[in-house]
Amino acid sequence: MKKELDSLMQEYEMDALLVTGAGDHNSAMVYFTGGAHLTQADLIKPRGQTAVLFHGSMERDEAAKTGLNTRSYLDYPVKDFIKEADGEPSLAMAFRYRKMLRDTGITSGRIALYGKIDLGKGYGFFSKLQEIMPEITLIGYQENDLLLRAMLTKDDMELERIRKMGEITTKVVGMTADFLSNLESKDDFLVDSTGAPVTIGAVRRRINLWLAENGAENPEGTIFAMGRDAGFPHSSGNDLDFLRLGQPIVFDIFPCEEGGGYYYDMTRTWCLGYAPDSVLKVYEEVKMVYDQIVSELRTGARFSNYQQRTCELFEALGHPSVMSDPKTEVGYTHSIGHGVGLNIHERPSSGLNSNEADILAPGSVITIEPGLYYPDQGIGIRLENTLAVEEKNFRVLADYPMDLVIPVRYQR
Amino acid sequence: MKKELDSLMQEYEMDALLVTGAGDHNSAMVYFTGGAHLTQADLIKPRGQTAVLFHGSMERDEAAKTGLNTRSYLDYPVKDFIKEADGEPSLAMAFRYRKMLRDTGITSGRIALYGKIDLGKGYGFFSKLQEIMPEITLIGYQENDLLLRAMLTKDDMELERIRKMGEITTKVVGMTADFLSNLESKDDFLVDSTGAPVTIGAVRRRINLWLAENGAENPEGTIFAMGRDAGFPHSSGNDLDFLRLGQPIVFDIFPCEEGGGYYYDMTRTWCLGYAPDSVLKVYEEVKMVYDQIVSELRTGARFSNYQQRTCELFEALGHPSVMSDPKTEVGYTHSIGHGVGLNIHERPSSGLNSNEADILAPGSVITIEPGLYYPDQGIGIRLENTLAVEEKNFRVLADYPMDLVIPVRYQR
Repeated sequence: MKKELDSLMQEYEMDALLVTGAGDHNSAMVYFTGGAHLTQADLIKPRGQTAVLFHGSMERDEAAKTGLNTRSYLDYPVKDFIKEADGEPSLAMAFRYRKMLRDTGITSGRIALYGKIDLGKGYGFFSKLQEIMPEITLIGYQENDLLLRAMLTKDDMELERIRKMGEITTKVVGMTADFLSNLESKDDFLVDSTGAPVTIGAVRRRINLWLAENGAENPEGTIFAMGRDAGFPHSSGNDLDFLRLGQPIVFDIFPCEEGGGYYYDMTRTWCLGYAPDSVLKVYEEVKMVYDQIVSELRTGARFSNYQQRTCELFEALGHPSVMSDPKTEVGYTHSIGHGVGLNIHERPSSGLNSNEADILAPGSVITIEPGLYYPDQGIGIRLENTLAVEEKNFRVLADYPMDLVIPVRYQR
Repeated sequence: MKKELDSLMQEYEMDALLVTGAGDHNSAMVYFTGGAHLTQADLIKPRGQTAVLFHGSMERDEAAKTGLNTRSYLDYPVKDFIKEADGEPSLAMAFRYRKMLRDTGITSGRIALYGKIDLGKGYGFFSKLQEIMPEITLIGYQENDLLLRAMLTKDDMELERIRKMGEITTKVVGMTADFLSNLESKDDFLVDSTGAPVTIGAVRRRINLWLAENGAENPEGTIFAMGRDAGFPHSSGNDLDFLRLGQPIVFDIFPCEEGGGYYYDMTRTWCLGYAPDSVLKVYEEVKMVYDQIVSELRTGARFSNYQQRTCELFEALGHPSVMSDPKTEVGYTHSIGHGVGLNIHERPSSGLNSNEADILAPGSVITIEPGLYYPDQGIGIRLENTLAVEEKNFRVLADYPMDLVIPVRYQR
């Protein structure tokens, strides 16, 4: 949680955090600003002190709304540093960062770097900064990242923002189901009012529209994958495919707030009109494992325990899993879930890369998403909800039926 | 132009370019791939050779579509490098990049870095790479960037993609005008069919919808700023404001292809219902300067000459400009235009940062956007089109009327 930042900085022996880049679509920056629309900003958070936000002079009001300490770039005119650096731009920016650090009281120590920016700048400016300030140590990528550790649990305002995205997400999933139900079937396909078959692309376009209409974005796309494509967990589906009855469709939707804020993540698997027995059987197994795992979740447990448990359950049903065969591409081929927040995938992790910090702590928000994949049989099934971990409970943040079959209108 | 890359690399003495990050919303990557939807990729372009695209094993098909040489990350298993690096993740990634470079034939020389990624990774991985490969020199930010030099002129396919975005942009601007024209006025405001006043937010939401519906995105937002807000070129407008008659509205729209491809940029200034004389006068001056500058444009000229010329024209009309007062916040306060491509602002530049490469070369795509701002009088006017520079002509890529007044329905 954000209030743990100082103690985490102590634990990681960090004297400051430095975040740079745009205000939007930049999770580390949004974490501190709450989502200010800033073209470019720098933020320095010294341990034990409020963060200072450096912003363009035109964006003073937007910066002020964050409630952080603010300083305008007007006090750091690039042309002065260019002069000091004899025209060398990376060195000039290094001088400028040195001054921003010093003005924030940072003259030595360990500084962790964050933010989404151009590699050329990230490498150019900060390797020069390290050169001219040998008394600091810049820390790049940390496998066990302190900011992701802080983000592992959410405060009430963050939870509410995620829940609200869940509300929008289920609303859009419902609109998608209604849209499909109101199409007529002809032979094995769904057709529009002119009798033309409807493509996955047409559905996806509507999903994008409905998300936009509700103030959400899907910068990572949406999975709407049918038949064989549904059998590949990473396939987003083929926009040119016609919607066909009786084929499983994996519909995995993970939008975020406009501007790149908090995410929600859910998956349903649908069959249009009817479900063949082979699909129904696999669906029921996935549903059973989903219910079983959710019933077994305990606050404080390591998330990866449930990955292990999911593998056991699926293997007991005769399916291959990544437990016995880490490279399997059929059966259960991925992880049981992940944390959700300002990043669609964050901690806690349930996978191989998890560690003792990846527990189901009160305040964390996780997905539970068992799935089974048999692409050669045209089968892929995944069911997923996003849940808030509470002291005693696991609460699905936005409920929606898990029914497999979407009824469609049969042409007379 | 892309075909000049090798000669530019020669000129800049670069032996290779290294681009990293996602396939979407990452202009340097899109420049090479054309817009493949890759979660994470690395691209190495040695001088005189086709680029090699390193991609995740799940995204083989998407990578193959680019027509580049491709290699799967399967051949570069992270866990092997983690072992080699004794568990130190940044060092492991440095080893991995060293192997990718060597496999591409790069063992020494100067390598320019590109791509949008997390600063922690950018600094962590590449400062380590520089350490373990002293025989190479990693080049970060270059003020006069070779990739932006290449992007300065567009090939026919790029021009067509920008033109198509222009078509979508003008279509959405037209839909916005129609929407406003069909509202009724009540007292000084526009109201919906229930009689409730319509907000700027409601208009902006529709613009977002219409863009999405047409396969476009506006990751940088849209300016729809009225009255005093119109007087600040960087204000995007207040979503809670009601649409008021007779107030200038600066409508600056700059969407890109879905996934973060080519942009288009245009601005109109509108008054709903009627325009007060004070607004009309300023509008006519801006329109006159727009027409004058466009008529004076010459292929091969330095773009900044027209910035100078715009300042002269506005000052001759009695307005302050950045020529005589670089810090003025009234009158003409910005630059006459900029290049447009995979970045909304790219070269050629017409501003202070321009150099001898910033010419109106055949194949470049530029905006022309004079404006006048008097926030305390509630006045801001800007008119902007995107133009293709041809051998002898300057062609507006998507035409749209520049009328100031949007007629509205008066309530009976």
